[in-house]
Amino acid sequence: MNPISQLPRVALAVGDPAGISPELTVKLLVDPDVRAAANLVVIGDKRILFAGAQVAGVELDLPIVETVEQMPSDRTLLLDLGHLDPAAVKVGVASKAGGAFALENFRVALQLAQKGIVQAVCFTPFNKSAMRMAYPSYDDEIGFVGSVLDIHSAAGEFNILEGLWNARVTSHMPISEVAAHIKTDLILRTLRFTDKNLRAAGFEEPRIAVAGLNPHAGDGGNFGHEDEDEIKPAVLAAQSMGIRADGPFSPDTVFLQATRGMFDAVLTMYHDQGQIAMKLIGFDKGVTLLGGYPFPICTPAHGTAYDIVGKGIANLGASRAAVLLAAKMVRRTWSDLHLVSSQA
Amino acid sequence: MNPISQLPRVALAVGDPAGISPELTVKLLVDPDVRAAANLVVIGDKRILFAGAQVAGVELDLPIVETVEQMPSDRTLLLDLGHLDPAAVKVGVASKAGGAFALENFRVALQLAQKGIVQAVCFTPFNKSAMRMAYPSYDDEIGFVGSVLDIHSAAGEFNILEGLWNARVTSHMPISEVAAHIKTDLILRTLRFTDKNLRAAGFEEPRIAVAGLNPHAGDGGNFGHEDEDEIKPAVLAAQSMGIRADGPFSPDTVFLQATRGMFDAVLTMYHDQGQIAMKLIGFDKGVTLLGGYPFPICTPAHGTAYDIVGKGIANLGASRAAVLLAAKMVRRTWSDLHLVSSQA
Repeated sequence: MNPISQLPRVALAVGDPAGISPELTVKLLVDPDVRAAANLVVIGDKRILFAGAQVAGVELDLPIVETVEQMPSDRTLLLDLGHLDPAAVKVGVASKAGGAFALENFRVALQLAQKGIVQAVCFTPFNKSAMRMAYPSYDDEIGFVGSVLDIHSAAGEFNILEGLWNARVTSHMPISEVAAHIKTDLILRTLRFTDKNLRAAGFEEPRIAVAGLNPHAGDGGNFGHEDEDEIKPAVLAAQSMGIRADGPFSPDTVFLQATRGMFDAVLTMYHDQGQIAMKLIGFDKGVTLLGGYPFPICTPAHGTAYDIVGKGIANLGASRAAVLLAAKMVRRTWSDLHLVSSQA
Repeated sequence: MNPISQLPRVALAVGDPAGISPELTVKLLVDPDVRAAANLVVIGDKRILFAGAQVAGVELDLPIVETVEQMPSDRTLLLDLGHLDPAAVKVGVASKAGGAFALENFRVALQLAQKGIVQAVCFTPFNKSAMRMAYPSYDDEIGFVGSVLDIHSAAGEFNILEGLWNARVTSHMPISEVAAHIKTDLILRTLRFTDKNLRAAGFEEPRIAVAGLNPHAGDGGNFGHEDEDEIKPAVLAAQSMGIRADGPFSPDTVFLQATRGMFDAVLTMYHDQGQIAMKLIGFDKGVTLLGGYPFPICTPAHGTAYDIVGKGIANLGASRAAVLLAAKMVRRTWSDLHLVSSQA
């Protein structure tokens, strides 16, 4: 098998059934860019998909199989788990049934990827409340993926908007605990991880801006020491490894510089340092990539949009970008493999 | 004297002479909106002003006096301190002489206001490096104003952009120390202070959004306890005092809500929580107000713009907005005084 000659196969788990995920999934199936980039294995329930197709005004015309063994490998298809009657879900309302549906789709998608049957995983939006009803210990996607794949090494989330990536050193952590985690080792590890993922997505020499921790990046030590004592050494160490990192920059202007095209990515020190900026820039139109697994996992950054379900007005942009990024990262890996084998 | 019938008198201290401050000052002198709103007492050196006038392409035509005693009260004029030869300053370079010039102008302006000779103080941009060369313990404007006026009660900075205000509970403080300062008392005090200043600027019933401290405002206690334990009680206490406060809101979406017109102000818990957002929204076009003094102190939020000095292209918008806000706050105070006396 020469993988270069065929399309990547991407699992697409249908997200929360009470929101716009079904209609987005159906729109992806007929999107010309998506069709040109990947064969999708949609994982859900055909009844939910048919309902989404009605909303989207799309005719659903694809092979439907019930087991993995029945799946043809060279086309987009639906793996029908037959596990949710649309009557069990109320549009626009988070429910345990909806959460269980989305979680099961995601679990099967991850398992298909783990077995190498697909090369990447995407999913349309989840509803966190629904997920927690179905799976009370559900904290975020990274925790769930780790438990399904039994992979507990470094994983991290990237937020991506039109070529601008945001990675972070700490995430869902109280502000009171952040400073104690800002250590050279962890920052350097995150920088290498970020650089590696950017390269996997096609950046040849990614330029990474590193945000400081404190106001004005510490203002020469007047407002905290971590910028000089922990972050700067990590940047220098990364540079010595050939990573195009720079900083630490004042946290309140680094995104202005990045939006002017000076950087491909910003590494932030804590959750809101990046999220405040990315959401104002318009990250709801962007993509979240979970990195650190043997395969890419991508999803649109926006939520389930309960307020516009069923109106057929849900914007496909972020979902399309998520699938295209996943497919691109797979092709990139293939191309590296091919390069290696032809050099051998 | 019936103050209602005459214009507020606003001291305008010329800022750093190596940057765009001289040309901005001169442009303010001929701006129709500014002329209609206030009589300015410009404080600086006439030689610096004449140089700025040349850059701005403006003819400088106003009374020039050398002592306060010579000042007519009913017109815009220049108080010439005669303390800086333009030859002593290199355009675009921070210097001790430049810092000393700006500081002295600011000091005289504050003293005029303290004596009631002017009712408000404005200044064109300072350069912090130059200020520190001239006055090594210079930390920020609030410290300097406190020392000149010998006022050490609560003062605070507001960042204002087109009707959206940002106030903060903590400011130039290391992130490691922030959480320990997020206490109900301090938050409530800052809320009352913010409400008072908004009312002084003409908001009848200001709507104040209060940001949480932690990611997703703590996510119900999963990522920190301060949102529920310290911030929420302060919001409730403020509401019981008739303040239209609401929150705590997730820090990464509260500014999106505010920019959609849902709030007049956002109270943030730390420096970058507000600054990251305000700078992306375009706060460099905004105004900084120092509140908590017997008179308003306003300045444009942008800096000295050393890269465009002398080109005549410096944008007057923020400086104009600063003077207009100061004048409006004075008129508002007058109108309150008038109201009180007519009710008596």
